[in-house]
Amino acid sequence: MDRRPTIADVAKLAGVSRSAVSFALNDRPGLAQETRRRILAAAAELGWRPSRPAQALSRGKAGALGLVLARETDLIGADPFFPAFIAGVESVLSRRGDALVLHVTDPADEAATYRRLAVDRRVDGVLLTDLRVDDRRPALMAELGLPAVVVGDPEGAQGLCAVSLDDRPAFAAAVRELAALGHRRIAHVAGPQEFRHARRRREAWEQAMRAAGLEPGPVLPGGFTAEGGANATLELLARGADRPTAVIYANDLSATAGLAVAQRQGFTVPGDLSVVGYDDTPLAAYTHPPLASARADAQGWGAAAARALDEVITAGRADHVELAPAELRMRGSMGPAPEAPSGAASSTH
Amino acid sequence: MDRRPTIADVAKLAGVSRSAVSFALNDRPGLAQETRRRILAAAAELGWRPSRPAQALSRGKAGALGLVLARETDLIGADPFFPAFIAGVESVLSRRGDALVLHVTDPADEAATYRRLAVDRRVDGVLLTDLRVDDRRPALMAELGLPAVVVGDPEGAQGLCAVSLDDRPAFAAAVRELAALGHRRIAHVAGPQEFRHARRRREAWEQAMRAAGLEPGPVLPGGFTAEGGANATLELLARGADRPTAVIYANDLSATAGLAVAQRQGFTVPGDLSVVGYDDTPLAAYTHPPLASARADAQGWGAAAARALDEVITAGRADHVELAPAELRMRGSMGPAPEAPSGAASSTH
Repeated sequence: MDRRPTIADVAKLAGVSRSAVSFALNDRPGLAQETRRRILAAAAELGWRPSRPAQALSRGKAGALGLVLARETDLIGADPFFPAFIAGVESVLSRRGDALVLHVTDPADEAATYRRLAVDRRVDGVLLTDLRVDDRRPALMAELGLPAVVVGDPEGAQGLCAVSLDDRPAFAAAVRELAALGHRRIAHVAGPQEFRHARRRREAWEQAMRAAGLEPGPVLPGGFTAEGGANATLELLARGADRPTAVIYANDLSATAGLAVAQRQGFTVPGDLSVVGYDDTPLAAYTHPPLASARADAQGWGAAAARALDEVITAGRADHVELAPAELRMRGSMGPAPEAPSGAASSTH
Repeated sequence: MDRRPTIADVAKLAGVSRSAVSFALNDRPGLAQETRRRILAAAAELGWRPSRPAQALSRGKAGALGLVLARETDLIGADPFFPAFIAGVESVLSRRGDALVLHVTDPADEAATYRRLAVDRRVDGVLLTDLRVDDRRPALMAELGLPAVVVGDPEGAQGLCAVSLDDRPAFAAAVRELAALGHRRIAHVAGPQEFRHARRRREAWEQAMRAAGLEPGPVLPGGFTAEGGANATLELLARGADRPTAVIYANDLSATAGLAVAQRQGFTVPGDLSVVGYDDTPLAAYTHPPLASARADAQGWGAAAARALDEVITAGRADHVELAPAELRMRGSMGPAPEAPSGAASSTH
């Protein structure tokens, strides 16, 4: 035989159905012992051997979910969202002894990584995080037949099941509370705008500003990083009389760094500047002053996403899941707007 | 045949060696076509079927390394070591498209989790982190024949390859520098003492105290957590005239929380209290004042551990790897000892 023999070839030679061959090769019950022997002999005669996908198929489930992060490895290490999210996924998987298969790839290798996961049947399904504007992954999942769940808003899910947690109410609440405290110039330090959630946060801030009758102030990129948050804050504070009296950051990492550099520049928080983050990371309550932030329950999100993916894997589909929206936690870094912005604070900090 | 047929049974019936059977069943080159056919026919006759491990074996490598974390999922989410370490492991794996199989288990299920990884051949080897005093995992790996590398000191590796990074010089340097700044009462907020690295850090602090001619001060448990660090700090500061003038924490998470609660209690840092952490997490340079800490390069550690495990997998063994020790970073949270400890600081913080 020139080509590699298939299950159909084995079935033909043994005079049985393809599913009987599959039963015999996978040692599943329900075949007469004689039929089983005849099939195995035919397989041996043809030199048939299982392909990798078929092997995985024969074992049924891979017993693993996949998570592919197309980010710089440095960023993964610094972002507090991922460990909490992964902890939530594991809280579901660990109960049944299943694994999380984690890939960190260069964005250029992202599609190839999913393709390999699907072909090798290494995972039963994947969780799609960090959805980008015009993300190609939902279409790729359909092409690969790989069960998937989008961790993000349904509008970006392109027909896949979405497990979402609305971050917008927290940004709207932050603007409302700051406006009530007398703030008029409220800036935003944004996350990378290629990500849907970063863009949504910026839009939520902008809409809330307009709803409060305020002109949306400056938006600076903070890259979701400490360094980005620090640099954006320095730039905002250098604007003299025009500087904002409050800054809403896209995440805690950039906010915490902003809080620190503002104080280092001699500004008091919240006396001269109010600071609000997002994520309510473990350290938010322990910064000095404590960082106002929004609790998004990344861990609960991970657990919900894993459960939804289970349902997609077993039932073929699942309804969107909408988690409780993020909740603003007012803390010491938010305070009344200063009477009139001073050029530089006279505090002894 | 009453029992399940083995490769030895197939070899006997086909009149060949066991390794010839293995070659034939795994479709490896080097056998005459006729011999191969005879072996496959014998296997079929006996009803031999590959076991799961043998199936995985036949595919060669699993293309994945394993990491089992027997910790509370909450702790994983809060500890900045793991994401950075995992990022380092992935920096090696991602280049060749390999995966990290991550399990978070209850400590009671730890052994069963490793056993399953080995039996299912889901990974080619495992990284052992968080080595405990009298850790049973090295012996288990030998029993399971699962290639493994210990991420920690060689003394705890029980014959396995160890990839270690000495944290002790950083704790010794912190004590030396604080002593040179006039501190006499230097406390330690320790990590959980069932972990070897937590115990080593406490011992390093203790030895350095004696070497500096100082009586080792109080040791309080900080659990490697923000909450633990905060509580321990409150307890230390409540000691009145006996309170320490400096605290060395086992990690940044507990130190950052300690720094915050000390200031919240009206103590100035470093005026009334010097604070030193360990890990040099992304936010350490951005606390207020910036947190003195020790850079341990968790990411480089992850990469080195992955490379060493590769060597163990392919060559059967690897030499211990000793990375550059952690280096103390002096920052604003360290300062001269106060003239005489005041009961409570008069600062306006």
